[in-house]
Amino acid sequence: MTLHAVESRLERGKRALAQIDGKAGDNVVAALADIAPDFANYLFEFPFGDIYSRPGLDWRAREIATIAALTAMGNASPQLKVHIEAGLNVGLTKDEITETIMQMAVYVGFPAALNGLFAAKEVFAAIVPSEREE
Amino acid sequence: MTLHAVESRLERGKRALAQIDGKAGDNVVAALADIAPDFANYLFEFPFGDIYSRPGLDWRAREIATIAALTAMGNASPQLKVHIEAGLNVGLTKDEITETIMQMAVYVGFPAALNGLFAAKEVFAAIVPSEREE
Amino acid sequence: MTLHAVESRLERGKRALAQIDGKAGDNVVAALADIAPDFANYLFEFPFGDIYSRPGLDWRAREIATIAALTAMGNASPQLKVHIEAGLNVGLTKDEITETIMQMAVYVGFPAALNGLFAAKEVFAAIVPSEREE
Amino acid sequence: MTLHAVESRLERGKRALAQIDGKAGDNVVAALADIAPDFANYLFEFPFGDIYSRPGLDWRAREIATIAALTAMGNASPQLKVHIEAGLNVGLTKDEITETIMQMAVYVGFPAALNGLFAAKEVFAAIVPSEREE
Amino acid sequence: MTLHAVESRLERGKRALAQIDGKAGDNVVAALADIAPDFANYLFEFPFGDIYSRPGLDWRAREIATIAALTAMGNASPQLKVHIEAGLNVGLTKDEITETIMQMAVYVGFPAALNGLFAAKEVFAAIVPSEREE
Amino acid sequence: MTLHAVESRLERGKRALAQIDGKAGDNVVAALADIAPDFANYLFEFPFGDIYSRPGLDWRAREIATIAALTAMGNASPQLKVHIEAGLNVGLTKDEITETIMQMAVYVGFPAALNGLFAAKEVFAAIVPSEREE
Repeated sequence: MTLHAVESRLERGKRALAQIDGKAGDNVVAALADIAPDFANYLFEFPFGDIYSRPGLDWRAREIATIAALTAMGNASPQLKVHIEAGLNVGLTKDEITETIMQMAVYVGFPAALNGLFAAKEVFAAIVPSEREE
Repeated sequence: MTLHAVESRLERGKRALAQIDGKAGDNVVAALADIAPDFANYLFEFPFGDIYSRPGLDWRAREIATIAALTAMGNASPQLKVHIEAGLNVGLTKDEITETIMQMAVYVGFPAALNGLFAAKEVFAAIVPSEREE
Repeated sequence: MTLHAVESRLERGKRALAQIDGKAGDNVVAALADIAPDFANYLFEFPFGDIYSRPGLDWRAREIATIAALTAMGNASPQLKVHIEAGLNVGLTKDEITETIMQMAVYVGFPAALNGLFAAKEVFAAIVPSEREE
Repeated sequence: MTLHAVESRLERGKRALAQIDGKAGDNVVAALADIAPDFANYLFEFPFGDIYSRPGLDWRAREIATIAALTAMGNASPQLKVHIEAGLNVGLTKDEITETIMQMAVYVGFPAALNGLFAAKEVFAAIVPSEREE
Repeated sequence: MTLHAVESRLERGKRALAQIDGKAGDNVVAALADIAPDFANYLFEFPFGDIYSRPGLDWRAREIATIAALTAMGNASPQLKVHIEAGLNVGLTKDEITETIMQMAVYVGFPAALNGLFAAKEVFAAIVPSEREE
Repeated sequence: MTLHAVESRLERGKRALAQIDGKAGDNVVAALADIAPDFANYLFEFPFGDIYSRPGLDWRAREIATIAALTAMGNASPQLKVHIEAGLNVGLTKDEITETIMQMAVYVGFPAALNGLFAAKEVFAAIVPSEREE
């Protein structure tokens, strides 16, 4: 991958999100277009252009951290589903994802872990079986 | 490691926590002794005897998930410090831990990420330099 | 407006909520009628009869505070929508409301800010264009 | 009730949940079957086999505590509904349940209390009148 | 106790809080005196004059609900300690209080339950043994 | 990289934070220096270079929103104190700040509002009287 120093945060963030979950990126741009288009740029720039583009942690580990946090928060179901899909995209197995979610029962209790597992079930069910092997 | 099938959840949990963070295990048993001694057993059994002993995710990944969640929760500072230390014990580098915590700014905002970084700073400072190399 | 000293907290709260968002007040009374009718009175009395009726902060500022808090909480979507509408009713522009919600990304992260923006989008879309000019 | 000392935590938990809310137990086993079947066992074992089976607090008091906490959390609506039903099953009156939920306004504010009351309204409405007298 | 129908919410709330935890009431009035004295009145009026004075649930049950919620919230340690003491004042045993707190591990995880138990330990230790028998 | 009038996000953020609360900016840079120096840059860039520098809402309104949110969150006491001070710096009166915090009792309950008021009391007390008139 040859990148010139001039790649902007926005470009880098768009590229990162496209690799992690391209569909989710497109959806959020479309959804924000008529209410807060700048916010879509911030979303590309800070989370993906700055944080996910840092070298110290690979994307598998980053998605484990994110799935754990979103399960723990318990109030961000749409974003949890996006990152369960993103986790699969960057190479986590379904089992690694369910293990991460189950573990949250220890830290935030059974309801949040159950709701996280049901989100995973919904995401896994929506994936065409032939499309991804495990 | 030869274990008979008869190892109880309590024994398995004690063994797991001893490997992850032995000092923390001893501290919690002592702290609970005169108020809720059974709770120390539950703590060994469910989190460590059941969850951390499952094969589907290694301890490095489990500690990333836990550090992410405890940072995100923002109200469990003593437990976050225990798991930052546990993260180092199971082989995470300081950088991997700070990356995990910084990433939480995306999901739960800057205050919780800052408070998580300050917790890590305190844990890292308490470690005798010669004791652990990075 | 001439008011005798004898206006009760209930009357004052009903009057305040009617000015801020009359429809919301009627809805909550109806919804609570068969389960907890007293609670509708508490809702008029303390939040609106006591707090919103205090002189130290105007309603525009109060709605900015409330929209910020409800966005930050991330688990009170129906109430957030009521107060986005209330914000418009007391004179906030759509832009001031979306700025307030976007700012929450700093303090509670992007998921809660995104979900807040989508709530605003829904409320704004439900308003008949001719009904309110900006 | 004659129980041999050999009743396992799983058996004890299944028996406890069956008494508290049998339908909910069956539902969760079915829902978890294809994603995380072990998690259904943990759910029987720790919450119901360990905690609810402890002698120090009767089930009425335990359900008051649980309804209070789930209302306060504000992000576990399915579990709150299960425990409102469980509360009725162990002998709480509808009034005791609504009092518990209303009280939460003091500690976590009006939105969470309102959403809790609406959950109770939904559960109460689903109960066949002849089925349970108050 | 002869009370005229004209007892105000403020008077009723002060009387209720004095019975539940007189010292805590005095402390909060003193602490708020130079910053928000009206808020002390609201605190007497709504929580204690309105809610705790309702007939549908006795104070033992109300304190179980409050201790559960404050433990679950995990960010209101001073108020949790006040209500652990209040629980003892209205007749809960230490065991009933620790059972309530331990149960929260199921709903909000082990860290919040542990921190709740340590709060209880601190409150119990501060009570002169001869002063209260169990 | 040569930037003319196009002041960088970092420069703009540093300038904004210096105006809002210069001491806090210096403190956070110093505190992060040996653990996560990049994070200090992110903090200048996104919150202050991007969000607070947007034209749609003045700093008084922004600080009301932030004080409301940080009070509501209840787990970010150091940041709440910084923004109470920042509120005074951008022209909010002590009364406007306490009104904002008191109002949070409606949305997140009395404990978080009380703890917010005590944070304000501490910040107000630390200000040399002659230094700021109201």
